[in-house]
Amino acid sequence: MTAPTSTSAVVTAGAALFAEELTRQGVATVDVDWRPPVSGTEDALATVMLDPRRVTANQEALARMVLARAQLTDVRPAAEVLDLQPGQFLHAGPPIEWERASGPLRGALIGATVFEGLADDPEAAERLLARGSLSWEPCHSRGAVGPMAGVVSPSMWMLELYDDVHDRYSWCSLNEGLGKVLRYGAYSAEVIDRLRWMTDVLGPALQAATRARGPIDVLAIIAQMIQMGDEGHNRNRAGTLMLLKEWLPDLIAADLRRADLAEVVRFVSGNDHFFLNVAMPACKLITRAASGIPGSTVVTTMARNGTDFGIQVSGTGEEWYVGPAQLADGLYLGGFGPDDANPDIGDSAIAETAGIGGFAMATAPAIVRFVGGTVPDALRTTARMYDLCVGENPSWAIPVLEFRGTPTGIDVTSVLRTGQLPQINTGMAGRVAGTGQVGAGLVTPPMECFTAAGHGLAAAVPSPHLPGVVRT
Amino acid sequence: MTAPTSTSAVVTAGAALFAEELTRQGVATVDVDWRPPVSGTEDALATVMLDPRRVTANQEALARMVLARAQLTDVRPAAEVLDLQPGQFLHAGPPIEWERASGPLRGALIGATVFEGLADDPEAAERLLARGSLSWEPCHSRGAVGPMAGVVSPSMWMLELYDDVHDRYSWCSLNEGLGKVLRYGAYSAEVIDRLRWMTDVLGPALQAATRARGPIDVLAIIAQMIQMGDEGHNRNRAGTLMLLKEWLPDLIAADLRRADLAEVVRFVSGNDHFFLNVAMPACKLITRAASGIPGSTVVTTMARNGTDFGIQVSGTGEEWYVGPAQLADGLYLGGFGPDDANPDIGDSAIAETAGIGGFAMATAPAIVRFVGGTVPDALRTTARMYDLCVGENPSWAIPVLEFRGTPTGIDVTSVLRTGQLPQINTGMAGRVAGTGQVGAGLVTPPMECFTAAGHGLAAAVPSPHLPGVVRT
Repeated sequence: MTAPTSTSAVVTAGAALFAEELTRQGVATVDVDWRPPVSGTEDALATVMLDPRRVTANQEALARMVLARAQLTDVRPAAEVLDLQPGQFLHAGPPIEWERASGPLRGALIGATVFEGLADDPEAAERLLARGSLSWEPCHSRGAVGPMAGVVSPSMWMLELYDDVHDRYSWCSLNEGLGKVLRYGAYSAEVIDRLRWMTDVLGPALQAATRARGPIDVLAIIAQMIQMGDEGHNRNRAGTLMLLKEWLPDLIAADLRRADLAEVVRFVSGNDHFFLNVAMPACKLITRAASGIPGSTVVTTMARNGTDFGIQVSGTGEEWYVGPAQLADGLYLGGFGPDDANPDIGDSAIAETAGIGGFAMATAPAIVRFVGGTVPDALRTTARMYDLCVGENPSWAIPVLEFRGTPTGIDVTSVLRTGQLPQINTGMAGRVAGTGQVGAGLVTPPMECFTAAGHGLAAAVPSPHLPGVVRT
Repeated sequence: MTAPTSTSAVVTAGAALFAEELTRQGVATVDVDWRPPVSGTEDALATVMLDPRRVTANQEALARMVLARAQLTDVRPAAEVLDLQPGQFLHAGPPIEWERASGPLRGALIGATVFEGLADDPEAAERLLARGSLSWEPCHSRGAVGPMAGVVSPSMWMLELYDDVHDRYSWCSLNEGLGKVLRYGAYSAEVIDRLRWMTDVLGPALQAATRARGPIDVLAIIAQMIQMGDEGHNRNRAGTLMLLKEWLPDLIAADLRRADLAEVVRFVSGNDHFFLNVAMPACKLITRAASGIPGSTVVTTMARNGTDFGIQVSGTGEEWYVGPAQLADGLYLGGFGPDDANPDIGDSAIAETAGIGGFAMATAPAIVRFVGGTVPDALRTTARMYDLCVGENPSWAIPVLEFRGTPTGIDVTSVLRTGQLPQINTGMAGRVAGTGQVGAGLVTPPMECFTAAGHGLAAAVPSPHLPGVVRT
């Protein structure tokens, strides 16, 4: 063979023998970390990679995500903002029928049915649900998001966020705290009583404070959180306190009984996860801004219903690509173990879809540590996510990475080419309806979502009109 | 020369030639970063290093620092808790007379004199102060601490912290916020009006909340802050919100007018530095626990009055070792520059003395960045401080350093042996009395404090009673 000129080098991948032989011959080599694409996706991947719209479409998707805004503008009942009728519910993840619904989703629907007064007890609620008298659809189908089971019923109060750049809203219910709560599939009397208090006292109080305060810049709070050890999914401690700080003066000035004021403040400040339900619709506004760009391979939704994991991709709009929800690797609350855990559930993976949560793990090493990992593991997780993304969000700078922006815009083609999956931080619900939370940990989507998305994207690539070629 | 046996190695330092020659001869060498001690301290250093009590005494000092506790137990007027009489003031740093007092210290004394009603205007106050009609002594002399000028007058309300392990109290005034404030030497009407409101409304409100709430574990809050990007000196954002969270329910339940409650909450939550005045007495309790151990070379106080920088060392108790206060290297508020800045002032370096502030810089790279540094600079600063300290505080774990404890217990001998100085984060006061804050930045003590301490410690080493040797 002829040695390349001195200004060239041979890029080698895979078997090291080839590079070694070239090196022996004095030829410069550059070793790259290449591996074959996920099996069965080679043709689809080639079609998508060769789509001339792809690069520009993904740049457009990234630009829209980075430019999106999210202001908390109101707190209102779901019936009012989502046009949810009695007997209608929303839930997390892709669509699912009762027969295939997981324990925690069934539990949350049972609880919501009792809470709405449609049934006197859980047994009656379950019968109503099982026989098809009630209806449910994904939160995402109405531009909303819900953590864990994500069940929303008409009487629940929703945080309303607005993106004034793209003139679009998103919503999420109010966070109930941890342990025995509806979103983890619990429906006991204490759960229903708490939901009643949230509807009677908490929702109206936060509405008064939000309306008096005026719009709160949620993305600015998230930017601060990332400087403060919160990754915005499993850790929202600083974010919750910063949100409360924004509300406090107007909350105090609102026409609330002193005891109710104290209880509202205690409830919000005592729940480190309160901000999650604000971060989630903010992330939904970001990812939704990138939706529907022809040719874009950027993931705009990752969501789970406890049975299926579903993703949506910019170039194919609202189409769901599903695979089996996985079990998280995590830490269990006292008395619970792996046998008690339900597979992955919740719309909260919208955090990772927008570039925080597991993608910002480098800023929250405590999360990795509590499942036995190390600080370098946390750094490596974020580093790996950069490889899957089309770009970075400069507004969300990670201090330990020398203020590099969070990895943003998961590219289906990068997942398929590398075989690496997005890292998601998550809570774990009990497998059996009524249990509640059993732990928290780390999980990934199933590869099936991405292989299906690859085929879906390939099918959406327009036929090339080559001269002299007639497609029949 | 004879080559060492194979299990030995030669430790080499200084000129590389020697190591290179040994290496050439096949002898293993270990290069260490040694440099000659600070000139003029060689004899004193040798005496102190050979003191057989030193190692054990420093271990004892570290143990006491790590075991100390600090609970916020009350908020009370200085007249009541410090037995401060009319016409008496406390101030930051070592003792100083009017003639040598810096602009910001003079300004704060002038403001406090007006605030206490001892003079009708600043001019009259200045005359009283200059002619010796009033008296002042260091906060440290009464176990208290004060940021910047640190002026405390009898009517000011103090945060009271208690160490139940060592049965000891410390105190600090309430933080006034930034800009034109007394502690930065401002004394205009707005400054005095704010102090009046703090005495009439804020102090009593926080007293009611603290008494109803019960003791607040300040060291636990600091431990959390260090996970949240606060180093506890120039950055106290998370700490302030976490403290407010502890107070809120009882503050709301207290017998306060709704408007006063709103103003108190707005004042505390709107000042990211509010927690500094809680962190400081907590750090004072830690360092004071290590004070007065014969033979210990651990620094227990670093404090500045705007003219002199003074340190106290465990083995010599309350003795001050002083040198000229330095100018900070920092960032100036709009319109101000280096010519406007006063030399270093304040007791807040108690933070670094206890192991946070500049010593925990690795956790707060934003602070280094705003004076033009980088994240690696922040990591290097903390790494360098480990070299100066006798140990670490495992309760204060820095995430990015894989949860290593903060460097704790500055050793005078390490400073003298390495020539490296402790790194302090600080605010900058205007040089001219009445100006207020002009910036914030980084500073070090003058080496003179440590050389003087070296001599002081050497003088305190008991005479060796060697057999056959009679000292005359």
